[in-house]
Amino acid sequence: MSEASYKSSATQTGAREFFAAYRPVIDAELDRILPKEDQEPIRLHRAIRWSVFAGGKRFRPALLLAVGQTFGAEVNNLLRTACALEMIHSYSLIHDDLPSMDDDDLRRGRPTCHIKFDEATAILAGDGLQTLAFQTIAEDETLSAEIRMHLVAELARAAGTPAGMVAGQARDLDAESRDVSSNELERIHYEKTGALICAAARCGAMIAGANEDEIAAITNYAINLGLLFQITDDLLDVTATADDLGKTPGKDARSRKATFPALYGVDVTRKTVSAVHRTTCDALAGINKPTELLRSIADFIMQREA
Amino acid sequence: MSEASYKSSATQTGAREFFAAYRPVIDAELDRILPKEDQEPIRLHRAIRWSVFAGGKRFRPALLLAVGQTFGAEVNNLLRTACALEMIHSYSLIHDDLPSMDDDDLRRGRPTCHIKFDEATAILAGDGLQTLAFQTIAEDETLSAEIRMHLVAELARAAGTPAGMVAGQARDLDAESRDVSSNELERIHYEKTGALICAAARCGAMIAGANEDEIAAITNYAINLGLLFQITDDLLDVTATADDLGKTPGKDARSRKATFPALYGVDVTRKTVSAVHRTTCDALAGINKPTELLRSIADFIMQREA
Repeated sequence: MSEASYKSSATQTGAREFFAAYRPVIDAELDRILPKEDQEPIRLHRAIRWSVFAGGKRFRPALLLAVGQTFGAEVNNLLRTACALEMIHSYSLIHDDLPSMDDDDLRRGRPTCHIKFDEATAILAGDGLQTLAFQTIAEDETLSAEIRMHLVAELARAAGTPAGMVAGQARDLDAESRDVSSNELERIHYEKTGALICAAARCGAMIAGANEDEIAAITNYAINLGLLFQITDDLLDVTATADDLGKTPGKDARSRKATFPALYGVDVTRKTVSAVHRTTCDALAGINKPTELLRSIADFIMQREA
Repeated sequence: MSEASYKSSATQTGAREFFAAYRPVIDAELDRILPKEDQEPIRLHRAIRWSVFAGGKRFRPALLLAVGQTFGAEVNNLLRTACALEMIHSYSLIHDDLPSMDDDDLRRGRPTCHIKFDEATAILAGDGLQTLAFQTIAEDETLSAEIRMHLVAELARAAGTPAGMVAGQARDLDAESRDVSSNELERIHYEKTGALICAAARCGAMIAGANEDEIAAITNYAINLGLLFQITDDLLDVTATADDLGKTPGKDARSRKATFPALYGVDVTRKTVSAVHRTTCDALAGINKPTELLRSIADFIMQREA
């Protein structure tokens, strides 16, 4: 990770500053959309807010905002869909952490939803967040019905089955009990993590009215960015300490989760990170817009595994 | 339940024949929409189909078709949304049956999803069905984007929180540990069961282009029909045998579920059934369309607790 071209502090600051600037904006909109803590049924709504406001980096909504603004959309037209992406992400974390799934007690250093509340409440909190994600887009009066429709379909395909997040989670559970090929591993990663990241980028471009070629280029960028995100996530699980992660490191290896370091070793995985970063940035070449921020986001993701 | 006016075999046959005629139509469309059993991830898709094709009566989709046709819509424009309603209903049953929720091993005489497969697969099957419900409406090219948008929003409000199915389930869990008032009981019933039945009727009317007054009348009809449905369901749980139900009767009482018979006793509950049936039919009075079928559906629901 020492290539000078990736260390330009200007581009790196670009993504960092962008995330820092928009995180409170996204949080404020989520706070506006989600049922209040004192609204009945209180336990359910407290569980939803406990999980959504757990200190997440808001990567998916920020990516949507970055892509949308790159193609000229206003923040006000992007914000509700960005929050819907985060709600889908939050619901998936709540359900993934359940005892019958990954059985995690901690996330970002805090008790997971079913530990803080109870299992039934956690299942319902996830269910309700998924519903609210689609409702939020359907009710977004800043967008035409036509666009909202495309956004709901796009998000549903990315979140569901046979080619989205739910399918990836099912495949990942299946993979725990046996060896997987590198093709299977990439597919699991794409469906579990990449599909939603890709949807975030595509939704941003769609709201901005990007043309077909631009959406194709952004899709290519986002597919590779999602892969970069997942590989660096796997590496962090191997190399980081519990304090860094806010969860128990090495857990993936112990439970025989399909990961890149498990399949290729840490050194080869690090080289893959560089290669995927390059492919991610190359995908931006054909876009006739100022793509510095999107390039900076790729740098930012790559460099988080330091 | 002996009033002669409710025993007219003509109207009763109306609803019965309608349900019998459309059940295979709805099943064929669900079969077309749902991922195939041999499509990867296979275990997930088998679990989804196990639960959706478990012998359900297709009450919600049939109600949508009945209301839609009453207001002049074509079956072809109603069918996908009808299936979406059934998918939301199926997902809710899968999650309700989970060990941390109602902990049911049997439904309609067959093993529930988490018994037949496993808990993680059951959670994901429910999650994926919810996603597919919204996707199905968003991708329904027989309807305008405007209508699809309203349908997604309507279904999401009915299925979510703070005033839909997920909220009702959360309130019901909370009520298990304490006494509830009759107001609370009606609210739990409305949210858990009535909201989705009401959405089915309203979606049918919306697709048919019914005017505001007609939708208000249908909403009134459906709210009462949903209540009738839930009260007769509660009564069946008390009075039927295991063979009739395909599940263990009396389970609601043992787990201190909030039910009408538990709160008022069987005799008073039966009188309430008659009164609610009357209110349901009265709501149809202002609709200037042939509403015999909708009246017959109310008769049919009332008479199932024989």
